[in-house]
Formats: sequence, C-alpha cells, structure tokens
Amino acid sequence: MDYQEYFHNRLEGLHAEGNYRVFAELERDCGAFPAARQYTGRCERDVTIWCSNDYLGMGQHPEVLAAMHEAIDRCGAGAGGTRNISGTTHDHVLLERELADLHGKEAALLFTSGYVSNWATLGTLASQIPGCIVFSDALNHASMIEGIRHSRAEKVIWKHNDLADLEAKLAAAPANTPKLIAFESVYSMDGDIAPIDGICDLADRYGAMTYLDEVHAVGLYGPRGGGVAEREGLMHRLTVIEGTLGKAFGVVGGYIAASAALCDFVRSFASGFIFTTALPPAVAAAAAASVRHLKTSEVERTLQRQRVAQLRERLDALDIPHLPNPSHIIPVIVGDPVKCKFVSDTLLDEFGIYIQPINYPTVPKGTERLRITPSPVHTPEDIDRLAAALGTLWQRCQIARIPVAAQ
Amino acid sequence: MDYQEYFHNRLEGLHAEGNYRVFAELERDCGAFPAARQYTGRCERDVTIWCSNDYLGMGQHPEVLAAMHEAIDRCGAGAGGTRNISGTTHDHVLLERELADLHGKEAALLFTSGYVSNWATLGTLASQIPGCIVFSDALNHASMIEGIRHSRAEKVIWKHNDLADLEAKLAAAPANTPKLIAFESVYSMDGDIAPIDGICDLADRYGAMTYLDEVHAVGLYGPRGGGVAEREGLMHRLTVIEGTLGKAFGVVGGYIAASAALCDFVRSFASGFIFTTALPPAVAAAAAASVRHLKTSEVERTLQRQRVAQLRERLDALDIPHLPNPSHIIPVIVGDPVKCKFVSDTLLDEFGIYIQPINYPTVPKGTERLRITPSPVHTPEDIDRLAAALGTLWQRCQIARIPVAAQ
Repeated sequence: MDYQEYFHNRLEGLHAEGNYRVFAELERDCGAFPAARQYTGRCERDVTIWCSNDYLGMGQHPEVLAAMHEAIDRCGAGAGGTRNISGTTHDHVLLERELADLHGKEAALLFTSGYVSNWATLGTLASQIPGCIVFSDALNHASMIEGIRHSRAEKVIWKHNDLADLEAKLAAAPANTPKLIAFESVYSMDGDIAPIDGICDLADRYGAMTYLDEVHAVGLYGPRGGGVAEREGLMHRLTVIEGTLGKAFGVVGGYIAASAALCDFVRSFASGFIFTTALPPAVAAAAAASVRHLKTSEVERTLQRQRVAQLRERLDALDIPHLPNPSHIIPVIVGDPVKCKFVSDTLLDEFGIYIQPINYPTVPKGTERLRITPSPVHTPEDIDRLAAALGTLWQRCQIARIPVAAQ
Repeated sequence: MDYQEYFHNRLEGLHAEGNYRVFAELERDCGAFPAARQYTGRCERDVTIWCSNDYLGMGQHPEVLAAMHEAIDRCGAGAGGTRNISGTTHDHVLLERELADLHGKEAALLFTSGYVSNWATLGTLASQIPGCIVFSDALNHASMIEGIRHSRAEKVIWKHNDLADLEAKLAAAPANTPKLIAFESVYSMDGDIAPIDGICDLADRYGAMTYLDEVHAVGLYGPRGGGVAEREGLMHRLTVIEGTLGKAFGVVGGYIAASAALCDFVRSFASGFIFTTALPPAVAAAAAASVRHLKTSEVERTLQRQRVAQLRERLDALDIPHLPNPSHIIPVIVGDPVKCKFVSDTLLDEFGIYIQPINYPTVPKGTERLRITPSPVHTPEDIDRLAAALGTLWQRCQIARIPVAAQ
C-alpha cells in the first residue's frame, strides 16, 4: 500500500469538498488584544481578532501575567513529571482548591485540557461503573462523544435540549441501571443554553448522575463566574461540573469539580489523567489568578454583555441575520460554505478583521456562519469597523438578510 | 444505585491492595532544582527530587525561562482558541519547524501533551486507513494502547523488543493489508532500548509504517538530541517519530514529526488535535528555546551520562540491585510492594530524598522498584547522600542484594 498516496488522496478530498482547513498564523499583541499580527508567509499585517475564546481578555490581564511570571521565577518552566511521579506542585493543589470553591464542590481535579477532562472523566465513569448507560445530548462536544465512545458503555442520544425526549429515554431504560446524563450549558456554535434545572429534576426522578460541561460559561456567568449553573443556583444539584481554563480564564487546561470521592475515583482510574505530564506550575498559577480575579470582579462580565448587545443592535440595523440566543456568542449566518469562506477571507484581506469561517461538519450544511465573540477588550470603534465591513460584504456578496435568512 | 458508595468501595479496594496513590506535593526551587520544597499538610520541608522526568534540568534553564517570559510579555498567557479558530500563533509555527528539523522530517504537528499525540495520531491513522492492522509492542505506553483501542482497528501484540515474534506476526497477516508497527525507543520503567534498525528492516520487508515513541529519548540521545533514532542514523527510516516537550525539554506538550502529507492528514482528521485549545504561545516559545539549545549543546547530555555512571558505581559498591540497561534510567529493584513504599516514605521522611515508589500495575508484581533519574543538576554530593541513604535502608529493611536479587 502506498500510504503517502493515500494521505494525499484523502487531503484532496477535503480540498474538493471545501472542508480543507487553513490556519491563520497570528501573534496576539499583549496589552492591545484583540489586536494581533498575522503572518501570511509573504508579509505581516495588523488584524483585529473577533473569534477568540479568550472571551474576557483575561489572557492579557496583569494579575494573570504577573502570577505566571512569578511562578516561572519561583519554580521554573515545566512540572517535570506526571501528577503521581514528582509532577504535583503546590500550584496545582492551590488551583484545585480554587476550582472546588468556585463550584461549591468538595474537590476538583485538573487535566491538561478541557478535551482531556471530558474524554477521561466520561470515559472512566462510563467504563468503570458496570452497566452504566450514558444519556448524551445530540449536540455534545467531540471530546464528550469520544470519551463516551471510548468507554464502550451503552449510549443513548437525546434530542438537543429536549426534556421530553430525555425523559422518554430515561424512562425506557431499566430502573436499577446506573445512568449518567451528559450535556453542556452553553453550546458553542449556536450559543443556546440547556434547561439545567429540568435536567436535574429528571436525573433525580430516574436516579441518574449529571455531567455538565460549562467550558463556554465558566468565568462568564454567575456572580463569581461559576457558570450558568451558579447563576441559576443549581451547582449543588450537579454530580460533575466540567470546565476549562483556556477560554474565559485565558490560559489552558481543563478540570472537573465534584464530590471528593468522585474526583479521587477519576484520579485513580483515568488513564488520561494518570499517564500524562502535569501542567506547568506557572500555568496553574496563572489560571488560579484568573479564577480568583473573576470571583470578585464583575467589570469584565458587565462590559462583555454591553459589547454583545451593541454588536447585535448594529447587526439588526443592517438586517444581518444572527441567531438569537441568551449567551455571549453571536452566530452570524451566511448559509453557504463558499460565501462563508469568501466573506472570512475578505474580512481579513481588506478590513484586517479575523473571523474564522465555520462550515460543515462543525455545523450543519446551509448554516455556515461567522461565529463572533465580542469581549470587554473590543472597543465601540472596533464594533463600528466590524459592522461597517459586514454591511459592505453582505451587499457585495448578495448574502441573505433578515427576514429571508430567518426563515 | 448509590454512586458515592460505589466510588468509596472502589477506592477502598485500592487501599486494600496497596495500590492507592498518594501524590507528593512539591514546589521546585527554580535555579536550585533538584531541590524542592514538600508540603505535607502539616509542615514544609526541603527535599531533593530523584525521580523527575525533567531529565536535563531544562525546566530551569535560563534560555528556556527567558523565552517563556518574553513570549508572555509579547502575546499574553493563553492561545485563546483551537488551532483552527484563532489559536495558531507564530510561536506554534516556529516550534513545529524546529521539531521537523530536529527529526529531519518535512513537518511536525504539536499536541497538548505526549499522551494526546500518541492517542490522537495512532487513533487516527489506525481508524482512518481502512483495514489497518496495528502491531504493538507488548510494553507500549498507556497512551499508545488507548489510541489503538480507540481506533477499533485490529491489533496484534508482539513480544517486547522481540524481532522474531514481530516478524512471525507480520508474516501471518495478509500481504496487502495496511500495517503500522508501534513501539518506543527507551522504555520508561526498565530503561531498555528497542532494536530500531531491525524493526525498520521488517517494516520494509512487510510494507508496514513505523511509529516510534521517543518521549524518553528526545533531547537526550543523538548529536542534536533527536533521540535514539538520530544516534543510530535511522530517523529517515521511520514513518512517524513522536516526542514530548515535557521531559528532557523541560516544558509540556507533545508532537509528531513525519511527512508533510501525514502531518496534514492527522491535523485534518484527529479529533484530539482539532477540538482542543492550543498550547499557550509562551509554552511553545519555551519549548523551542529548549529544543534549539539541545541541538548544539552537548554539556547536559555528557554530564547526565557521568551522573548515571557514578550512581550505578555507587549502587554496585553497595550491592544494591539495579537493572542493567543502556539508558539514563536506573531501576532499583525492591521486589516487594510494602517494602518499596516503606523505603520511599523513609527516604522522604528521614533523608529528604524524594523517589516515588513504582508498584503494580505500572510494573509486574515482584519487580516493585525505585525508578531513579540522575540528571546534570544532581551534584556528586547529592549522589553521596542518595547512596548512603539507600545503603542504610537496604540494611534496615533487609532488602535483597546482588546476587540474590539478580536471579
């Protein structure tokens, strides 16, 4: 078999479908983010990033950077080992305490990424609890799907955010079988939010554990940044809350918060936790500073909500279609993969505005979109420039406007 | 079902077996590593770490720390997104070039950890190439095993480092079926090294790809730190070389180096690469500085070899059994789980020496051990103290000495 030829052919297939991904090469301008420099291979140019998951600009917050610098000076670059073999540092332990406190849980457990925290925790719970059935929301993130798949447990997919469908499926399963309901709070691509309380009610009724992914919510919702479950007073009803340190907290890494026994169980049995080098202590220290800051500061969250509202108003004034949702994510629907890519490319080339196009398979065909994430570090002038550029391109490309696109 | 009770019972089981893991909580003393501070909950005390995978002390190297500080000042803490959605920075691209060059390959691809690089790459290659059979060394790392398992491809396990067994198994498979041989260069627990050339010969003969995990070798072997395959002039014969930035390079992260088409294929199809936040640019910059330094500096490797030889001599003089192997890892066999834990605890409590005990299931029962990793930052005085402490404890605990233990 000619392996090289096989790889080439598969890549050709992606090109032909329009699904080949080209990464924009950036350099964030610390202190001036969302300003960044783009390296094109031929030249460098200044751009404004409008699709970052550094939702609050905490990746350049002075307290976060100071903590990271200080920890490097204090204990160096890497952790030097797995958590079990010399890699558990004081900074990891302090961060886990900070996260347990954030979610009102007995304990928390750090992972190298949000992906790994989902994959390893769901994979471990579902495989290690004999007979466990996982009830998984249809739009769960790839990391959750892969974790459930890896467990080889029975999986039942329920319709996205549909309590009636979830209940029907829970009721159809044997009463005494262990059950785990896995879902997210804020769904990244549509920005819609799960009915957490209703899901907790069903979990109670049918004796199921609940696993809530709050990666697009921690830092952003709730009076202390504990996520949507905190805002709605529901944290105590969830078995596991999973979060990330790489989005609103501005650093990298993932975690779960849960009972001490559950965290210890995952700590003891999850291959993806055990057999991997711990995060650098400086990453843990920076993340802890970020979590601590957002527990008391409301400034960033308030300003973000204002920016989101301002941009939505501007889009409405231009009749540019954007999915209505109660979150900070503004999906602007283009509805055509070629136009979506073209709009994204032109925004970058002509206007210095970077928004990655989101095409199939990340979203369904016909709903290709620009996923815009306004943040407190975007200025009203940034919003003006973005709205003007989108208005120009919607005109030039003859992209559907409201009400046509809303149908 | 009472989930909490279930978790408690499983944890009780670990305690009863003696397999419950307690993490030592440390704070590395940057600039004085292997010196560290241990937090016990009751007090703090100074310890010397002898089981770190920061094999060359690069985690505190001034060039590495300067690069990390500089990148934080330049572009902040986190990357802010997945590689596809705003998370590819100039520092990632430069690091991938550095790594491709290190291994003499067309391209390299970064992952959030060595675990994820193995899991995602093996999982993707084995699942995406129809009919692929994976030939996996019996002692491969958990991350490789999980990746192969995740792919659901057919897996054939061959006896550890046994060319005859590998050949028999390759020969038994259909000639035209795609094949992938997965193995490591330096095996972490025994410190033995694979017959890479013989495996490449077999791969050529049977039309197989080769996947070599060099995580315990990159930075340490070869004139530029390219690993055992570099030292033996074999890099060009391997399809994929996988490595880590979290051991000898002293930071965190994993990677593969391979043909441009293969890297692009994995980049395009691996869930564990696509759907995860990129490493912080500062981590990439620190790792690149470390890789660059070790491409030209032989000082660290030479000094490490001396320290390994010195400790082995001291152990021989005390008749303390240590597995002979051609690597930098010194497994000192205790051969009993309770004694192994006791020796480790006493080394820490009485002598301020930290070496995590390695028990079943990480190693076979009866081969419980202390896994010692001498580094250029250990001084001759550190070695004196370690040898004296081990001599005292071998006497006190009546642990087998050479030649009894060698049988």
